[in-house]
Amino acid sequence: MPVGEILKGPLLAVDGVEISSIEAGIRYPDRKDLVVLKLDEGSRVAGVFTTNRFCAAPVHVAKANLAQSSASRALIINTGNANAGTGAQGMQDAQQTCEALAEALGVAAHEVLPFSTGVIGETLPMDALLSGILAIPASFGTSDWESAARGIMTTDTAPKACSAKFELAGEEIVITGISKGSGMIKPNMATMLGFVATNAKLDEAALAALCTQGAESSFNRITVDGDTSTNDACMLMATCKTEHVIRLGTPEFEAFQAELNKLMLFLAHAIVRDGEGATKFVAVKVQGGSSTEEALKVAYTVAESPLVKTALFASDPNWGRILAAVGRAGIDDLNTEALEIFLDEVQIVANGGVAADYTEEAGQAVMNREEIEIRIVLNRGETQETVWTTDLSHQYVSINADYRS
Amino acid sequence: MPVGEILKGPLLAVDGVEISSIEAGIRYPDRKDLVVLKLDEGSRVAGVFTTNRFCAAPVHVAKANLAQSSASRALIINTGNANAGTGAQGMQDAQQTCEALAEALGVAAHEVLPFSTGVIGETLPMDALLSGILAIPASFGTSDWESAARGIMTTDTAPKACSAKFELAGEEIVITGISKGSGMIKPNMATMLGFVATNAKLDEAALAALCTQGAESSFNRITVDGDTSTNDACMLMATCKTEHVIRLGTPEFEAFQAELNKLMLFLAHAIVRDGEGATKFVAVKVQGGSSTEEALKVAYTVAESPLVKTALFASDPNWGRILAAVGRAGIDDLNTEALEIFLDEVQIVANGGVAADYTEEAGQAVMNREEIEIRIVLNRGETQETVWTTDLSHQYVSINADYRS
Repeated sequence: MPVGEILKGPLLAVDGVEISSIEAGIRYPDRKDLVVLKLDEGSRVAGVFTTNRFCAAPVHVAKANLAQSSASRALIINTGNANAGTGAQGMQDAQQTCEALAEALGVAAHEVLPFSTGVIGETLPMDALLSGILAIPASFGTSDWESAARGIMTTDTAPKACSAKFELAGEEIVITGISKGSGMIKPNMATMLGFVATNAKLDEAALAALCTQGAESSFNRITVDGDTSTNDACMLMATCKTEHVIRLGTPEFEAFQAELNKLMLFLAHAIVRDGEGATKFVAVKVQGGSSTEEALKVAYTVAESPLVKTALFASDPNWGRILAAVGRAGIDDLNTEALEIFLDEVQIVANGGVAADYTEEAGQAVMNREEIEIRIVLNRGETQETVWTTDLSHQYVSINADYRS
Repeated sequence: MPVGEILKGPLLAVDGVEISSIEAGIRYPDRKDLVVLKLDEGSRVAGVFTTNRFCAAPVHVAKANLAQSSASRALIINTGNANAGTGAQGMQDAQQTCEALAEALGVAAHEVLPFSTGVIGETLPMDALLSGILAIPASFGTSDWESAARGIMTTDTAPKACSAKFELAGEEIVITGISKGSGMIKPNMATMLGFVATNAKLDEAALAALCTQGAESSFNRITVDGDTSTNDACMLMATCKTEHVIRLGTPEFEAFQAELNKLMLFLAHAIVRDGEGATKFVAVKVQGGSSTEEALKVAYTVAESPLVKTALFASDPNWGRILAAVGRAGIDDLNTEALEIFLDEVQIVANGGVAADYTEEAGQAVMNREEIEIRIVLNRGETQETVWTTDLSHQYVSINADYRS
């Protein structure tokens, strides 16, 4: 059960995007596991991808195809198999997937971008996949984003999606996005999988900047277990159906970016809220850092500490574990006397020890909440960074000890 | 239940060391929680301590006292309370502990080294501690190392200790050591708590080198959960009862070091074998690294990955998770094609994908074992490093979600 809302309807059709979600039987019967997003001619696509050195075959192919042209015409996503750690065979399978869909849709193979998610280290069941692709053209619709969000799930317990609608230069702009991910979540310059589409006419530079900056402040600020996936990708698609061109650095760009970032942050939070075994949604905010790097180091060390996470699961205000995690975060000249730590509105640490007016009851009251902010004030500078995470529960162990069986 | 042997008897008395272990009622009734190791005049002590910036008050005091003189006369260790995150009051309590024991034993306060372990963030119950200290002088014995090992336990399920005896320059040398630790284990330049004593006459330089190098290759190569404690310390005590002086760089030094390192490695492994919730004892060996730093980075990333650890708990040869962890370990120019991964004698990865003759049955056979080596060959250089770790089980979550209650 996710912590809070992860699908915010109504989901709006994006002019120029057609959707197909089918049951191809890739790993399990009777579930949607193959999704195609078809884009009208004139669309543009930008993406950011995992930094894992073992990035999956489809990531290699998607990056190469995108480098050849940003005018992609289709994205194909399968769940149940990540096509990662599959060597030369994996590359061949990803290429063949693009070729088969290109032929079915009447576009060029390099205009198709492939994505896979699921178990690492097994080759794609190409028979099932290719049969599925043949069924795609007959099944397109324009607005079934929820079904698409469902069709890319792995250990996710529910689909993640939302839409935004606003006016810009007198035209109606729509943005709709979906995401998936629950475990192996510590995106690094990318997310597990996130697909965001808009009807807006974004020029190349604006599109690239929006995608990179949007991912950086949303998907790149979440962690469930510190494990960066081999298949992470976050894609921004613009069908360019509006008249007004949105260019980098204009007031329209700023307005669009504000709406987009809000939507991407919702999708990133949705992954955390549905994190494997999550019973809490936790923001770790570090203030007063001397650099972004240092603030993030502290935030991630706390967010990924198994001891902090199990204390969160137990709703135990065991703040000594937070303090110990800050202490091992690698800031050599940290002045422990200057540090302050808060749980929501309650100050727990001051001057290197427990705050004078702290009471266990006040700490307990915060820890009982389902959504909690841990605020760490370093008092070394002006930088602030926030990462979002979950607790570590029995359910996390169960899910990951049973995942392949 | 520890994985394998963690106490290897008989435990030998060390000439010049007297031991007292009593029930002071520091946190729980009816358990030994206060241990004193008394050293004869002429003894020398060296130590390495935690690098956590929030190092505990007793660590500050022990370091300062040791800096004043290595001729320490007593070590006092309490469990049940770490005296960490306790600010000025904590420093005062650690000082007072030294003064009280010094008075009881007729030595100087700076000749006493204090150590604490247990819950972080609560002040020491000084009444119980000071009453306990008054009972110490009457209760000394010379060889009850097992009782001392038991008296420093926290979430440990059993005491950890071993002895070595050998001849050097015609004299009988004895080394006996104890350690504790089970969770919050990723020592960094030190261990949770390790105390090793010998009758050998080690000169200052030899003693310091032996302690630092011994800890580096044993306690500094283990991780249970990646959390570096605030109270880690590893102490080497030489009572100097033998005649022959062992000096740095001599053949006797080499011989002594070989025995000592073996003993320290046993004590470090004992901590992993008794790691919180451990059902497996796992060596992660990285070969062919281009530097120690790089080899350790890969080894720790794999050893601390929650996904690798839950797969180990499930005895699931889900090697894709190992590959994904290697890929995110931060080696930017890693050649994934050159990588090889083995589970004990079974090769699982070659050329960036599954090894040609790998079978799931062969992988499963290894994963069913209680002790497993994951060997990762980077093929980038000549460096080899090993770290030891455990799996991540339901029991780990239970222990840490219940620890304070």
